[in-house]
Amino acid sequence: MAYAEEKLLEEKVFKDPVHRYVHVRDRVIWDLIGTKEFQRLRRIKQLGTTYLTFHGAEHSRFNHSLGVYEIVRRIVDDVFAGRAGWNHDERLLSLSAALLHDLGHGPFSHSFEKVFQLDHEYFTQAIILGDTEVNQVLRKAAPDFPKKVAEVIAKTYKNKLVVSLISSQIDADRMDYLQRDAYFTGVSYGHFDMERILRVMRPKEDQIVIKKSGMHAVEDYIMSRYQMYWQVYFHPVTRSAEVILTKILHRAKFLYERHYSFKSNPVHFYSVFKEDITLEDYIKLDESIILYYFQMWQEEDDPVLRDLCARFMNRNLFKYVEFDPAKEYKKLTELYKLFEKAEIDPEYYLVVDSSSDLPYDFYRPGEEEERMPIQLLMRNNEIRELSRESEIVDAISGKRRTDHKLYYPMDFLRDDSTHKETKQKIRMLLEIENANDESK
Amino acid sequence: MAYAEEKLLEEKVFKDPVHRYVHVRDRVIWDLIGTKEFQRLRRIKQLGTTYLTFHGAEHSRFNHSLGVYEIVRRIVDDVFAGRAGWNHDERLLSLSAALLHDLGHGPFSHSFEKVFQLDHEYFTQAIILGDTEVNQVLRKAAPDFPKKVAEVIAKTYKNKLVVSLISSQIDADRMDYLQRDAYFTGVSYGHFDMERILRVMRPKEDQIVIKKSGMHAVEDYIMSRYQMYWQVYFHPVTRSAEVILTKILHRAKFLYERHYSFKSNPVHFYSVFKEDITLEDYIKLDESIILYYFQMWQEEDDPVLRDLCARFMNRNLFKYVEFDPAKEYKKLTELYKLFEKAEIDPEYYLVVDSSSDLPYDFYRPGEEEERMPIQLLMRNNEIRELSRESEIVDAISGKRRTDHKLYYPMDFLRDDSTHKETKQKIRMLLEIENANDESK
Amino acid sequence: MAYAEEKLLEEKVFKDPVHRYVHVRDRVIWDLIGTKEFQRLRRIKQLGTTYLTFHGAEHSRFNHSLGVYEIVRRIVDDVFAGRAGWNHDERLLSLSAALLHDLGHGPFSHSFEKVFQLDHEYFTQAIILGDTEVNQVLRKAAPDFPKKVAEVIAKTYKNKLVVSLISSQIDADRMDYLQRDAYFTGVSYGHFDMERILRVMRPKEDQIVIKKSGMHAVEDYIMSRYQMYWQVYFHPVTRSAEVILTKILHRAKFLYERHYSFKSNPVHFYSVFKEDITLEDYIKLDESIILYYFQMWQEEDDPVLRDLCARFMNRNLFKYVEFDPAKEYKKLTELYKLFEKAEIDPEYYLVVDSSSDLPYDFYRPGEEEERMPIQLLMRNNEIRELSRESEIVDAISGKRRTDHKLYYPMDFLRDDSTHKETKQKIRMLLEIENANDESK
Amino acid sequence: MAYAEEKLLEEKVFKDPVHRYVHVRDRVIWDLIGTKEFQRLRRIKQLGTTYLTFHGAEHSRFNHSLGVYEIVRRIVDDVFAGRAGWNHDERLLSLSAALLHDLGHGPFSHSFEKVFQLDHEYFTQAIILGDTEVNQVLRKAAPDFPKKVAEVIAKTYKNKLVVSLISSQIDADRMDYLQRDAYFTGVSYGHFDMERILRVMRPKEDQIVIKKSGMHAVEDYIMSRYQMYWQVYFHPVTRSAEVILTKILHRAKFLYERHYSFKSNPVHFYSVFKEDITLEDYIKLDESIILYYFQMWQEEDDPVLRDLCARFMNRNLFKYVEFDPAKEYKKLTELYKLFEKAEIDPEYYLVVDSSSDLPYDFYRPGEEEERMPIQLLMRNNEIRELSRESEIVDAISGKRRTDHKLYYPMDFLRDDSTHKETKQKIRMLLEIENANDESK
Repeated sequence: MAYAEEKLLEEKVFKDPVHRYVHVRDRVIWDLIGTKEFQRLRRIKQLGTTYLTFHGAEHSRFNHSLGVYEIVRRIVDDVFAGRAGWNHDERLLSLSAALLHDLGHGPFSHSFEKVFQLDHEYFTQAIILGDTEVNQVLRKAAPDFPKKVAEVIAKTYKNKLVVSLISSQIDADRMDYLQRDAYFTGVSYGHFDMERILRVMRPKEDQIVIKKSGMHAVEDYIMSRYQMYWQVYFHPVTRSAEVILTKILHRAKFLYERHYSFKSNPVHFYSVFKEDITLEDYIKLDESIILYYFQMWQEEDDPVLRDLCARFMNRNLFKYVEFDPAKEYKKLTELYKLFEKAEIDPEYYLVVDSSSDLPYDFYRPGEEEERMPIQLLMRNNEIRELSRESEIVDAISGKRRTDHKLYYPMDFLRDDSTHKETKQKIRMLLEIENANDESK
Repeated sequence: MAYAEEKLLEEKVFKDPVHRYVHVRDRVIWDLIGTKEFQRLRRIKQLGTTYLTFHGAEHSRFNHSLGVYEIVRRIVDDVFAGRAGWNHDERLLSLSAALLHDLGHGPFSHSFEKVFQLDHEYFTQAIILGDTEVNQVLRKAAPDFPKKVAEVIAKTYKNKLVVSLISSQIDADRMDYLQRDAYFTGVSYGHFDMERILRVMRPKEDQIVIKKSGMHAVEDYIMSRYQMYWQVYFHPVTRSAEVILTKILHRAKFLYERHYSFKSNPVHFYSVFKEDITLEDYIKLDESIILYYFQMWQEEDDPVLRDLCARFMNRNLFKYVEFDPAKEYKKLTELYKLFEKAEIDPEYYLVVDSSSDLPYDFYRPGEEEERMPIQLLMRNNEIRELSRESEIVDAISGKRRTDHKLYYPMDFLRDDSTHKETKQKIRMLLEIENANDESK
Repeated sequence: MAYAEEKLLEEKVFKDPVHRYVHVRDRVIWDLIGTKEFQRLRRIKQLGTTYLTFHGAEHSRFNHSLGVYEIVRRIVDDVFAGRAGWNHDERLLSLSAALLHDLGHGPFSHSFEKVFQLDHEYFTQAIILGDTEVNQVLRKAAPDFPKKVAEVIAKTYKNKLVVSLISSQIDADRMDYLQRDAYFTGVSYGHFDMERILRVMRPKEDQIVIKKSGMHAVEDYIMSRYQMYWQVYFHPVTRSAEVILTKILHRAKFLYERHYSFKSNPVHFYSVFKEDITLEDYIKLDESIILYYFQMWQEEDDPVLRDLCARFMNRNLFKYVEFDPAKEYKKLTELYKLFEKAEIDPEYYLVVDSSSDLPYDFYRPGEEEERMPIQLLMRNNEIRELSRESEIVDAISGKRRTDHKLYYPMDFLRDDSTHKETKQKIRMLLEIENANDESK
Repeated sequence: MAYAEEKLLEEKVFKDPVHRYVHVRDRVIWDLIGTKEFQRLRRIKQLGTTYLTFHGAEHSRFNHSLGVYEIVRRIVDDVFAGRAGWNHDERLLSLSAALLHDLGHGPFSHSFEKVFQLDHEYFTQAIILGDTEVNQVLRKAAPDFPKKVAEVIAKTYKNKLVVSLISSQIDADRMDYLQRDAYFTGVSYGHFDMERILRVMRPKEDQIVIKKSGMHAVEDYIMSRYQMYWQVYFHPVTRSAEVILTKILHRAKFLYERHYSFKSNPVHFYSVFKEDITLEDYIKLDESIILYYFQMWQEEDDPVLRDLCARFMNRNLFKYVEFDPAKEYKKLTELYKLFEKAEIDPEYYLVVDSSSDLPYDFYRPGEEEERMPIQLLMRNNEIRELSRESEIVDAISGKRRTDHKLYYPMDFLRDDSTHKETKQKIRMLLEIENANDESK
C-alpha cells in the first residue's frame, strides 16, 4: 500500500484533557508526530509568559498542535466525508497542515520575533521544505506533498476550503486554543459548543459555511474569543513579563554589539544577533535554552541585564498605569527625563505597551488585513454573512478595541536612598504615591 | 501589627483550574510566594517525565504547592476554626508548611535523586533553614518559625495534628495531587468529593479524624489514588523515559569521572558528580538547565550519551516486556551476554524497572514504613480505623502490588545491518519478533 | 434562645448539582423548607413545557428555590458579613425572601396566568401572609416577619439593598436559574463565573454594586442570559406546547361556561373558571392535577378538547412558520377564513405567538418597566453604570428583540380526505407544501 | 425504500445533558419515540422517590431510555460496525430494544410492583406485542419485528451478543443510569470513562468482551456502581419514602376490599386491586395519577390513609434505626406490641426495610440469579474473566452486602399527649430518647 494511504495496525489515542482523546490512524500523521521538529514544540509554551499570571498556563504548543489536528480530523472524517463539495483527496493534506501549522514557533515567540524581526511563519515553511525529519516524512507521502502542506499553511493553496480549516475567523486553530487556554488557565470563558459548530459546518467552494441553525453557537464562540483576548491574552501582568523579556533580549543584543564580555556567552544567540540565522540554529532554540541564559545572566556584571533577568526568573515584574498616548505624550517625555535624572534607564524601565483586537469583522476588500467573514447557510440555501443575521455580532463587528499601559519598576521608584526628590516627582506624575504595592 | 498577623489590604486570588481560586490574605504567605526559591518551582514539573506519555501533564510543582496551601487553608479556616482540638496559633504554621512542603524538589527528582543519592526532603529543610529569601520571610514572622515549619515538614513537630494535614494517608498533599494530576493529564480517575471530605474532617489530638458519614467519599478517594498510581504514575511509557533519563545521568557521571572531554562541560553538575553539592548550587538546578545539557549533548562524541540524549529529547523511548525477576533471572543473564555480543551496552540498554504500591494500610507498628491509618469518628464518638468499617477498603488494605518491566531499544534490535543473528536471538528471547512497533 | 436566632445542632446540607451543596444552619429556614406550601413546589416544573423540547428540563421550582436561597446565603455570609453598608439584622429576612420568592407559582404558570388572569406574585404574598404553615413559621420568628418577607418579594421593602439581592438585573434569582436551566437542559450556554461575581459584589445604600475588576464576569453573565432566552426559554417548540396548553385551558373554560357535560368534571378548576379562587384551592393546584385532567380529557366527547389534550400528552405539537404581524396581517385573515372553511377551528388551531426580550437596560425613569441598572464600583470609588464601561454591553443595551411565529397543526392540513382544495390553499399560503414533516 | 431501512432527511438530535447529544437517523426510531406509550415514560420518574432525598433527581425514564438507545447506537455504529462477529442486520433490533427496554415501567415501580405483584417486564412485553402504537411501528418494519424486540428484552433472543448490549454486568442500561443518576442527583460518584469502555468493546459470539487495555476503566465503572448503590439507590431517606408509599397502597387496597367509602374513588386502581389489570388500564397509570390520588386522600376520613398521604406529599417521612433481624427479632416483637398499645398501628408504622447488593459476580452456574461475568480479551486473544485479572474486582467479587433498617414515625412517638409511658418505653427500646430530630 502506498505510504500516504497506510493505516496503523491499531488506532493510536492520546489522552487529551480538552478533546478527551486525539485519534491517529494514518501512518503519515504518526510519523510526523515522532519527528524531532514536532517534539521540539513540547519545549515552547503555548502562551509564552502567561504562566506568570495564570499559573496553570504551562501547556506547550505540542499540546495545541495535536488539538488542532484532532478538530480538523473530526470535521473531515465525521462531517465532510461523503458530502458534495469535499474532496477526499485533500484529507491527508488537511490533517498534516493542521498538525504542523505552528511548527516554526520559537521560544516566547511574541517577544522574540518583535525584537529580532523574525517570523515564525517563515520558519514553519522552512522546516516543512528544508532538510528536516518532517520534510522526509512528507516527501515519502508524495514528492510535492511538502510544498502543498506549506501552501495550505501560507494560505496560498488553491483550494481555499482546505485553507479555511485552519485559517479563517472560525477555524480549528482558534477553536482549539480558546478551549485549551481556558482549560489550562482555569478561567470560565472560552467555553462554547464546539460539537454543535462542527456538526453544522458544511463544505462549499472556497470556504466553510455554517448552517443557520448553529448561529447561536457561533455567537457564543465569538463572545468567548472576545473575553479570552481581554481577560487572558492581553492581561496586563502577562504584558509586564513580555515587556521585561523584550528588554532582556534588547539588552543582550546591545551588549553583544558593543563587545561586552559575557560571563555566559550567548552562543545560541550569535546568529540571531547578527540577523543571519540558519534553520539548524533556529531549531535548537527552545525555552529551556532561553531560560538557561536568563538563569546565568543573573550573575553578569551589566546591571541592567542582571536586574531584568532576575526580575523575569523570580517574577518581580513591572507595575503599570493606564496610558493615553494621544493625550499624555508630554507627560511621557517628562517622565523619560526624570528617569534619566534618577539614573533608571528609561530605555529599559519606562515602557508603553499597546494591545489591540478586532473581535470579528465582515469582509472589507482592500484593507490591510483582509478577513474572510463567517458565512451562514440559510434554510433556502442562500449564503449570508454572519453579522447581517446576528444582532449581537453586528453590535461588535468591526469595532477595534485598543489598550495602552505604561510599565515601570515600582521597587526602584520606591527606593528613596538615592534621587529621593526626583523619584517623588515621578511617583506623583504616575499617581502612584499612595498606591498599594500588592497588585498581583 | 506584628508581621505574622499582618493581612493584605485586599485579598489576593490566584485563578486555579483545580480549586477555582487560591485565596491569600496573609502577608507572610504572599511574601513566601514571591521568593525566588518558591518561584523556582515553576521550572520543576510536578510529574517529571509523565508529559511524554500524557501530553497535558506539563504542570509544575509551583501549581501543586499553591493547591496544597489552599486545601489546608480551607480545612483550617472553614472547618477547624473555632472547634475544640484546634489551636488557632498553629494556623500560619500549617499554611506555611503546606506551601513549602515540596520546596527542595530538584529537576526530574525521581531519577535525579536515585542516581546521585540526593534527597529532596533534605533540601527542603536546607532551604527553609539556610541563607535564603524563604528563610528571611519566615524569620521575620518569628525567630523560631523556620525551625517549626521545617519540623512540620519533617514530621517531627510535636503537634501531630498539624503534621497530619500534609503527611498522612488522607492529607492535603495527596488530595491536591490526585485531582491536579487527573486534571492536567485528562484522565477520568482522580475525582472524588473533596468538598465533602473537608466538611467531615475533625481535629483530634494528634491527627485528623473523619466523621463516619463521610466514609464513602473517603473510599472513593482511596480508589482514585489506586487508579492514579497504576494508570498514570506507574505508566510503563513514563517509566521508559525515566529509565533513559537515569541512564543519561549515569553516563554523564561515568564520563566525567573518566575525564572525558565534553564539548559542553557539565559545570552545573560538577558538585553533584563529586557528591559535594552546596545549597546555592542546588537551587540553580532546574529543568531548563537539565534540558539545556541534554540538548547540547546530542552533539557529543560519546555515542551512548549522544544517543540517550537524542532519545529523551525527541521521545524515541525504549520498548518493554513484562518481566518476572523471580522466574526469569536466567533469561536476563543470557540477554545481558547477547547484548554485549551485539555491541549494545546492556548497562545502558537493558534495564529492569520495578514499581510497587500499597493503596492503603492500617497501622503496623514497627514496620519499615509506619503509616498513620485513617480514623473514622463514629456517631457515638468512638474512633474506628477505616478498614474495619469499609468492606471495600478492607478488601485492598495492606495488599502491595508490584510490577516489573524489562526495557530495551527496539530500533537497535531491529537493525539487522550488524550482528543479525545475535539480534534475532535477542528478539526471540524477548518474544518481540513479530511485535508491532507502534506501541505508544 | 429566640427562635429567629436558633441554629440547628448540626448544619444540614442538600446535595445540589448546580451549587454542589446547599447549606442550612438556621432553624427558621429548615422549618420553612419543611412546610407543605414549600414542598408543593416539587410538583411545579421550573420551566413549564420546556421538557417537551429539552428532555432534561424536568426540574422543579423546589430545586430553584433552594438554589436562590444558597446564593443569597453565600453573598450575605461570605461576602457582605462585616462590611460597612450591610446590616446583619437583615440576614434572616434576606434568606427567607430568597427561599420563598417563587412560592406562589402555579402549574405551568406562564399559560395558566395568561388564560385566567392570575398572578403568581399575588399568591406568593397570599401564602406568606395567609393561614398557612409558612406563615406560622415566619410569625414564630417575629410578628412582623411575614409582612417584611412579603415586602422584600414585592420590592416595596424600604431597604432596597435587600430587595436587590433577589430583584435586580444581576440577582440571585437570575444567577440561579440561568445556571440551573443550563445544567438540566444540557445546553452549553448559561455558564459564567458566579464565584467571581459574588466575590466582587459590595453592599451600597439601596443596591448591590460590582467592583470594576469583575466587569468581564458580568458581561459573560449578560451574554449567557441573552443566549438562554433565545435558545431555551423562547424555543419555538416549547412555545408550541405552550400554545396548545393555553388552548386546552381556554376550551375547558369555554365548555364549562356552556354547561358542557364533562365525563371528568374539572372540580379543581371551578373556582378558577369562575374567577373566584381561594388560597386553599390554589395551593392544591399542581402539575399532577393538571396532567390528571389532561389524561382524562383525552376521552371527552368534545373533539377539540380531546384532540388538544392528546397532542399535549403525547407531544404531537403544532408546527410553525415565521410571521410578520405588520406585513402579513392580510394573510392571517385569509388563513383564518380558510381554516373555518376546512372546518379546523382557527380559534384553537391557528395561533400567533410572540416573544420579546431586552437583554440589559440602563435606567430609564418613567418607563413602563423601570429597571435598576447594574452599577460598577470603580477603583476611585466612583459608581458608573455598566454600559458606560463595557463596550459589549453598550452594544446590546436597550435593544429589544421580538420574534413572532404562526402555529398550526400540520397533520390536519396534510390530511386530504376532506376539504382537499382548501387545505392545499392553506399549505400554499403557509409555504409548507413540500416541507419536511420531521421538524423536531 | 423499505420502512426498516428508511433514514430521516436530516438527522435529528436531542440535547442530552449526559451524552451531549442523542442522534436519530432511522425513521423507525423516530416514530417509536413519537408513540404515546413511549411519551408516557416522561411521567414516570427514573428514580422513584429518590427526589425526596436528592432534590435534583426529578428526571424521567424517558430521559434514561433515550440515553440507553444512544449508547447502543454508539457501540453499534462507531465500534462494532464492520467488525467480524457483528451482524449489521441486528442493528435496528438492538437500537429498538435499547429504546424500549423500560417501556413497561409503572409509576414508582419499585413499591407498586411489590404491593400488587406486578412486573414491569411483563408489561414491557405486553406493550410491544399488544395493540399499541409501538406495536404498529414495529410491525411496519417487519411482521416478526415486535417478537424479536420482545425477545431481546426478555433475554431469550438467540443472538446473545444483542442481548448483552442491554442486559449484562456492563451494558448500556447500567452505563446510562449510573452516569445519568449521578448527574441529576449531583453526587460525585457515578463517573467513569465510558468513552474508553466503548472503544475497547469487541463483539464475540454470545457476548461483548472488553480489551484488556480497558480493564481499569471497567474497574472504575464497578466501583462507581458500588458507590451509587449505597450512596444513592439505597439511601435510607429514600427508603423511608418507599416504605410510606408502600403502606399507602396497602391501606388503599385494604379499605377498598373492606368497602370503605372513599371521598375520591380510586377508579384507576380498581383493576389493580382486583389483580385483573388490562394493558389499557396499565398504560393510563402514571405518576400524575398517583399523585392526584395522594393529594385527594389527604382529605379522607380514614386516619391512616390520610396521615400517610400527607406524609408523602409534604415529605414528613419516617425516621430509622439500624436493625439486625437475626439478633433483634425479640425486640421487634416487643415493639410491635407497644405500638399496638400506643394505638399506632404497627402494620403501617413499624416497618423493617432491607437492601442488598452484589457489586459484581463471576459466573456461578445453577445459582438463582446467574450473571454473565465480564470477560476480558487479552493481547494473545485469550478470554479471561475480569476478577481473575483485576485485584480490586476480585476483592469485592461475589460479596453480597445487606443493610436492614427499622422505620417509625418519630413525631407520633414524641407526642406525649397520649400513651406517654408506652411511648417512652418505645423510645428507650429504639434508643432515640435524646436523638436529634433534625436528621435529613
